[in-house]
Amino acid sequence: MKRSLGVCYYPEHWPEAQWPEDAARMVAAGISRVRIGEFAWGLMEPEPGRFDWGWLDRAIGVLGDAGLEIILGTPTATPPRWMLDRHPDMLALDSQGRPRGFGSRRHYCFSHAGYRAEAARITEAMARRYGRDARVIAWQTDNEYGCHDTVLSYSPAATAAFRDWLAQEYQSPDALNRAWGNVFWSMAYDSFDQIGLPNLTVTEPNPAHAFDFRRFSSAQVVAFNRMQVDILRRHTDAPILHNYMGRELAYDHFAVGADLDIASWDSYPIGFLSDRLEADADHKRRYLRQGDPDMQALHHDLYRAVGRGRWWVMEQQPGPVNWAPWNPAPLPGMVRLWTWEAFAHGAETVAFFRWRQAPFAQEQMHAGLLLPDSSAAPGLAEAAQVAGELAAMPDVAPARAPVALVFDYEAAWAWAVQPQGADFDYFRMVLCWYRGARELGLSIDILPPHAADLGDYRVVLMPGLARLRPSALRALDGFGGRALIGPRSNAKADAMATPVPLPPNLPGMDLRITQVESLPPGMTEPLSGGGHVLHWREHLQGDAEVLETDAAGAPLIVRAGGLDYLGGWPDAAALRRLIRAACAQQGIETESLPEGLRLRDTATHRFAFNYGPDPVVWEGRSLPPAGVAWRAR
Amino acid sequence: MKRSLGVCYYPEHWPEAQWPEDAARMVAAGISRVRIGEFAWGLMEPEPGRFDWGWLDRAIGVLGDAGLEIILGTPTATPPRWMLDRHPDMLALDSQGRPRGFGSRRHYCFSHAGYRAEAARITEAMARRYGRDARVIAWQTDNEYGCHDTVLSYSPAATAAFRDWLAQEYQSPDALNRAWGNVFWSMAYDSFDQIGLPNLTVTEPNPAHAFDFRRFSSAQVVAFNRMQVDILRRHTDAPILHNYMGRELAYDHFAVGADLDIASWDSYPIGFLSDRLEADADHKRRYLRQGDPDMQALHHDLYRAVGRGRWWVMEQQPGPVNWAPWNPAPLPGMVRLWTWEAFAHGAETVAFFRWRQAPFAQEQMHAGLLLPDSSAAPGLAEAAQVAGELAAMPDVAPARAPVALVFDYEAAWAWAVQPQGADFDYFRMVLCWYRGARELGLSIDILPPHAADLGDYRVVLMPGLARLRPSALRALDGFGGRALIGPRSNAKADAMATPVPLPPNLPGMDLRITQVESLPPGMTEPLSGGGHVLHWREHLQGDAEVLETDAAGAPLIVRAGGLDYLGGWPDAAALRRLIRAACAQQGIETESLPEGLRLRDTATHRFAFNYGPDPVVWEGRSLPPAGVAWRAR
Amino acid sequence: MKRSLGVCYYPEHWPEAQWPEDAARMVAAGISRVRIGEFAWGLMEPEPGRFDWGWLDRAIGVLGDAGLEIILGTPTATPPRWMLDRHPDMLALDSQGRPRGFGSRRHYCFSHAGYRAEAARITEAMARRYGRDARVIAWQTDNEYGCHDTVLSYSPAATAAFRDWLAQEYQSPDALNRAWGNVFWSMAYDSFDQIGLPNLTVTEPNPAHAFDFRRFSSAQVVAFNRMQVDILRRHTDAPILHNYMGRELAYDHFAVGADLDIASWDSYPIGFLSDRLEADADHKRRYLRQGDPDMQALHHDLYRAVGRGRWWVMEQQPGPVNWAPWNPAPLPGMVRLWTWEAFAHGAETVAFFRWRQAPFAQEQMHAGLLLPDSSAAPGLAEAAQVAGELAAMPDVAPARAPVALVFDYEAAWAWAVQPQGADFDYFRMVLCWYRGARELGLSIDILPPHAADLGDYRVVLMPGLARLRPSALRALDGFGGRALIGPRSNAKADAMATPVPLPPNLPGMDLRITQVESLPPGMTEPLSGGGHVLHWREHLQGDAEVLETDAAGAPLIVRAGGLDYLGGWPDAAALRRLIRAACAQQGIETESLPEGLRLRDTATHRFAFNYGPDPVVWEGRSLPPAGVAWRAR
Ligand SMILES: [Zn+2]
Ligand SMILES: [Zn+2]
Ligand SMILES: [Zn+2]
Repeated sequence: MKRSLGVCYYPEHWPEAQWPEDAARMVAAGISRVRIGEFAWGLMEPEPGRFDWGWLDRAIGVLGDAGLEIILGTPTATPPRWMLDRHPDMLALDSQGRPRGFGSRRHYCFSHAGYRAEAARITEAMARRYGRDARVIAWQTDNEYGCHDTVLSYSPAATAAFRDWLAQEYQSPDALNRAWGNVFWSMAYDSFDQIGLPNLTVTEPNPAHAFDFRRFSSAQVVAFNRMQVDILRRHTDAPILHNYMGRELAYDHFAVGADLDIASWDSYPIGFLSDRLEADADHKRRYLRQGDPDMQALHHDLYRAVGRGRWWVMEQQPGPVNWAPWNPAPLPGMVRLWTWEAFAHGAETVAFFRWRQAPFAQEQMHAGLLLPDSSAAPGLAEAAQVAGELAAMPDVAPARAPVALVFDYEAAWAWAVQPQGADFDYFRMVLCWYRGARELGLSIDILPPHAADLGDYRVVLMPGLARLRPSALRALDGFGGRALIGPRSNAKADAMATPVPLPPNLPGMDLRITQVESLPPGMTEPLSGGGHVLHWREHLQGDAEVLETDAAGAPLIVRAGGLDYLGGWPDAAALRRLIRAACAQQGIETESLPEGLRLRDTATHRFAFNYGPDPVVWEGRSLPPAGVAWRAR
Repeated sequence: MKRSLGVCYYPEHWPEAQWPEDAARMVAAGISRVRIGEFAWGLMEPEPGRFDWGWLDRAIGVLGDAGLEIILGTPTATPPRWMLDRHPDMLALDSQGRPRGFGSRRHYCFSHAGYRAEAARITEAMARRYGRDARVIAWQTDNEYGCHDTVLSYSPAATAAFRDWLAQEYQSPDALNRAWGNVFWSMAYDSFDQIGLPNLTVTEPNPAHAFDFRRFSSAQVVAFNRMQVDILRRHTDAPILHNYMGRELAYDHFAVGADLDIASWDSYPIGFLSDRLEADADHKRRYLRQGDPDMQALHHDLYRAVGRGRWWVMEQQPGPVNWAPWNPAPLPGMVRLWTWEAFAHGAETVAFFRWRQAPFAQEQMHAGLLLPDSSAAPGLAEAAQVAGELAAMPDVAPARAPVALVFDYEAAWAWAVQPQGADFDYFRMVLCWYRGARELGLSIDILPPHAADLGDYRVVLMPGLARLRPSALRALDGFGGRALIGPRSNAKADAMATPVPLPPNLPGMDLRITQVESLPPGMTEPLSGGGHVLHWREHLQGDAEVLETDAAGAPLIVRAGGLDYLGGWPDAAALRRLIRAACAQQGIETESLPEGLRLRDTATHRFAFNYGPDPVVWEGRSLPPAGVAWRAR
Repeated sequence: MKRSLGVCYYPEHWPEAQWPEDAARMVAAGISRVRIGEFAWGLMEPEPGRFDWGWLDRAIGVLGDAGLEIILGTPTATPPRWMLDRHPDMLALDSQGRPRGFGSRRHYCFSHAGYRAEAARITEAMARRYGRDARVIAWQTDNEYGCHDTVLSYSPAATAAFRDWLAQEYQSPDALNRAWGNVFWSMAYDSFDQIGLPNLTVTEPNPAHAFDFRRFSSAQVVAFNRMQVDILRRHTDAPILHNYMGRELAYDHFAVGADLDIASWDSYPIGFLSDRLEADADHKRRYLRQGDPDMQALHHDLYRAVGRGRWWVMEQQPGPVNWAPWNPAPLPGMVRLWTWEAFAHGAETVAFFRWRQAPFAQEQMHAGLLLPDSSAAPGLAEAAQVAGELAAMPDVAPARAPVALVFDYEAAWAWAVQPQGADFDYFRMVLCWYRGARELGLSIDILPPHAADLGDYRVVLMPGLARLRPSALRALDGFGGRALIGPRSNAKADAMATPVPLPPNLPGMDLRITQVESLPPGMTEPLSGGGHVLHWREHLQGDAEVLETDAAGAPLIVRAGGLDYLGGWPDAAALRRLIRAACAQQGIETESLPEGLRLRDTATHRFAFNYGPDPVVWEGRSLPPAGVAWRAR
């Protein structure tokens, strides 16, 4: 498949007279796709029930006439002000009980039935009007579910819906009491209507309560999205997608993605480095203008899995943004690098956010491809350069990677509910493992937790999977490759209970965790093979073969068959070493890359990306900072 | 008296069939006492007014048949969910006005009359049923008053009760206005019903207002506990106790303790190091798996005073806990060390929390003596070792210590209300002074603020007593030993007013504080005798003999008769030096101990405890980490 | 004009019998003015409508008889408790929606019409009684507007008033929607009554919304003050002033000051160092007992501008205060230094806060000139010393400074609403620039943003003026001196919009900002002339002459005519260098001062102040710490 470039455009922000020139300039820059509509409810339906499609018809006309393919978004992330008069209780409440009011976006509770009906109504109206329009080649539902911490709502609507969900899930209060262990602290309920949300308790709520609230909240997002998808499907055959966010773990993207045709995500490498990455000041300084070298790739691989192979970048940072604590500009070349990296990971389309920087409202300091005065911003030339390179390039087809990593949103919720150590975080751990493999030059596939078959992968990484699904346990039973599992793997039964037999209870491995320890920053345990464990360590008991120990000789890594269990969180050196050894054993080649260099293999090429601020040498050639290179495999 | 071991047990968490084996294993481990019942209201009274004692009768039967002595707890820390329907306004409000809801524990306001009546009702019911049961050898009221910051409630019930309390205390609004100085900022009240709680004011409230609210809140705890004690006394002759918490200063434990027969407390050395100790990272790293070497001993001595000599450890940490920011495991041997240390300080019983780790609910990551699969956790063997050693040991009787420290909860409230320096904290200061004495190998007795007689102590430590009680002033008048007093001593009259004549106004000492300074971290003043003062310094004026000065020659320590006044917060080196000199003058022998080693004298023995991570030599023998040794005195 | 000393006095805090002696001691110390009354509403009007003037008549009598001149304050910062019964909704709400209740001071919302009427009523009553009293030589309105973050209120009263204000400002919802760019995110309003306050939105509100709320909130302060001034003017010819606070930027002091005759402010050098100054630990340690060497002077110059030349210090710190995180005592001599510094900057009167330290209520730990026992505190002798020196000194008349700095409260609001970098703060930047000039020994005048004429200044500093007013743009057009402008200058059109043509769009300068970057701490760009830019940098495009570049040769400072534009935030070294060069070019002499030494020129003298903790040499003489020296010019 030929890869393509796109851009996010807001015709409603500009005079109509400017649209044709904008469209022509997009085409001239090599852009072939344009996303529109996702925040324009107020113009589509200026009063309840009175629709105005004229402007949108004309915008689609101008863009279509220029040859641009259109992605049309449902505008349900930005209900107009009149919606509040119809549904004063549609707002989410935050965990402190405060309403999250009108005046920005995403001001709705996923559980509010009245708002859900309104969202269905506008979706239906748009689908009827544009569902068969050939210029609209894809639909986007809503915008960035979960952004601004909007999945968990503590509203009356959420309370009522949670009770219903629990009633479905447990059937009787007694069953729920047993499952949650409510005998502890006399917390038993006599009816579902007595159950509140797990906020504002005197001390921590029952982890089963908090975990079920997270499962419920994720399910509400899935249902809200499915409602839109079901309506759209009745009116269009175009693929449907959603634009996910970075490091958003409050809902199960695999479950949302199962209803969609394509995954997409919004990639802001520099913003994410500043506002959602645990890293020391040196690392943040080194990658200030490039973004973390593994953060984008991890999301690319994750959303490729969520999209079952089909995925886009819907919003690509083209310059400084406005919303991170600090907002430096990309190093020259990074816009091109990020775009090529997405393609190398299999993206079908990379769309830039946004065409022209807005001179007003919240994102006026967010760069576009054009400045507010319509002159070119620095990102435009890099976009055009990629367009030229794409045209000259053979097709970039993804290939199966030699290494897999299993990712589970439920594990993120489990450890968020019960971190046991103040800095224990599932995503953080996954990124460490992923980085360890990437530093060896490896390409990686991400698998959902219910993956039934690991057989095609020789090395599988499974950090911190709170509960191994039956299919995963079956896949591990007699696994012929090498699986690196742990810590905290299979540590939870249903409802966050501790299982007996004790964890990890892996197939064919005689091993019990008899004690766990969370370790404060600076406290580490040396691993006998090199490196340390940090953040977390477990005390292992059983007959499994001991591979590595701590300084006192206590086991930290054990093996049985194809499974290695790690009773701790290895540091970067140990992760590199362990993954390298697993690969060597399984005949997978690894590299020793200079810092900041990353590789990615497609079906036909090996790509190299220099994220570092200094030139590096790769296969004999010098790659400057922000340099991209490729060769045939 | 022969010391004994106990354990906290929750028969309601386990199948009845397992009870006999549990009881037998307790006895086999040398455990003779078992606490039960304190969270089981939901099972005792599953519906309002319908009691189910069967399960508890049977549990007492099984435990009693095994020869275990039972401590029975009233379950008022965990009212069942139906209680909320009867008393929707029984919840405390936090200082931001948010209700502290159902879903964990301690969800009640001490001032709510309706809930107090319910608590009386269940106490009466339990007392009637088990008050004369010989197997129940002690009663515990409620559980950990104040835990999770539950003493201060900002509810309507608390407001009403506070007004009543003020009316009793001051008799007229005018008297209150005068006492509080309400002429300042036009804050005068015309009636008690105009007075609110001291939260959510525009800037800080009147310190008199905030201080009286703290006195009131403490009195509500005392009254709530006394209500239970009065009921129990009508039905039982068994001793009554409560399990206090660590570093809990929001209510006056001496006042609660006056109504009880025995004090007990819940000792979590590693959790407390992590979540309630000011110390630098080195100290926290050094003692990560042992706990602070003085924190337990200070509480042992404090609660021995609260119990007027009789005290227990009701909950002893037996392994990693779940509730601190980080939760490492104890160094092997520490469970034994902590237990012996408690006995050396006079504990009658040390009970471990808990028998078997729960596989569900909030504390499922809290270690027990058994793992959830009933196998032995590491703590069990150490408990059994202590049981064996106890059996072989002659009686461990406490002895009067040579040094006393006066402790006053009101001083903690005064400085919490008016710290004047952001890091000034009463408990923190007391722990520094206590540590200074302990580092010299001294045993210490703690005295309540109303102690009338210091005569048996040769050295008395009195840091930061905001208001010296008349009895203390009388005791200091002509005191024949050496009292180290200050800083901020006797600095407050009633209602937080500054007294005239100016502080400290000590008997026989011509001294006025003309200026006080709080010092930010890193700012110190050298003491002419060695070491520095930090956090706080005072400017001293008067004819008292100058002992030490700052670098400029201004007095910092002065003397008159048996009293030394310290116009600052001495650092560790200065405290050791000053206490050593006082002891030398009074003929008390001191030691120079290696870091981490602590001593404690009983009537017959000297005990040594190595809290440090390295071996140390004590009187010629090598003590390993977590080592305990003793010799006859 | 002969300068004078004053003091703040609270006769209502002390027995009447003590008043005569207090007055006599004030006079003996050289104090000639006394401020009274500003917190005494509760005594003036003990019940609604019942006035008691007797005590105040007698206090004025005693003070007047002693020869003291009286400043009388309206007591509207401290409405009595009964006011709440009449106006339960008069309280401000904080940004989290919590009422800011009774129990301290400033518990009112500026927008509450009912309270405004009450404030008018008490002002009228006081003005009628004392307006023609010759002993009252000046009036103070209210007290410290904005202190304790009291300008922004999120109450229903504020909401209603904000809607009215917007309706006046924009005339139609459509005009507002266009101005704010509400088409973005479907935020348009159909009526003014739909508009809420910009708090508790899901993510950040529209910056136009937040900025207009700040303009509105400032206007409410202006209106509240004007209401009092209008009443007072009808009854008195005495000058009217207000006592502003330090680093209070939430309302436009130029606008409030336009209605007043004199500006005054409350100077707490040590408190401000501790609680409202960005500085590293070394700086804070060095100036711990002196205060920052430029903070007071900046406010002196600012409030001289606000007072159009006439200004006082109404509250001068005389010793340790109670309200900062840490409260050390001034170095001996600092009370004298601060007082002389104020006079050297043109203060007519310096009044100390307060006469005698209160033994009760919130400020009992706040030093006065007397201790609570009426003995002299250390500050008294220094005050008396200044009184003596003043008497011996010729008049201290202010002179026009050679350098001006333009200060704009709206710029502070713009960058508070849209910092773009987490540590970007307008005041912080202004203080850096001001410090740069002061370190060169310069005296500085501050100009309001609407200054129409810069012609008398040879060097003008203009950092971060979000929107250059038309008059300022005219003044810059062909400016004959040297203006240092930027960064972020003229970056905003009305309603926070980005202007097209792009910023800075300065007269005669061909320059566009094509990209801006906020930089995290530790990230800097070297300036080719020396030093670095930090916090902020811009990418400059255009034909203006390039003066300095970054390491890569990209322009950072450009020039056209008399204007230099700085595309970044220069560090201290660069600021000194740039200002020195501008002065040299314009024939203004600069000095190289030792650290901590500051100069100030009056019409007749040059003053030197040693803020540092070590002696320094100035013009051949040694100045000790806290030393003050002067010589004729
Ligand atoms: Zn977003
Ligand atoms: Zn507790
Ligand atoms: Zn103030």
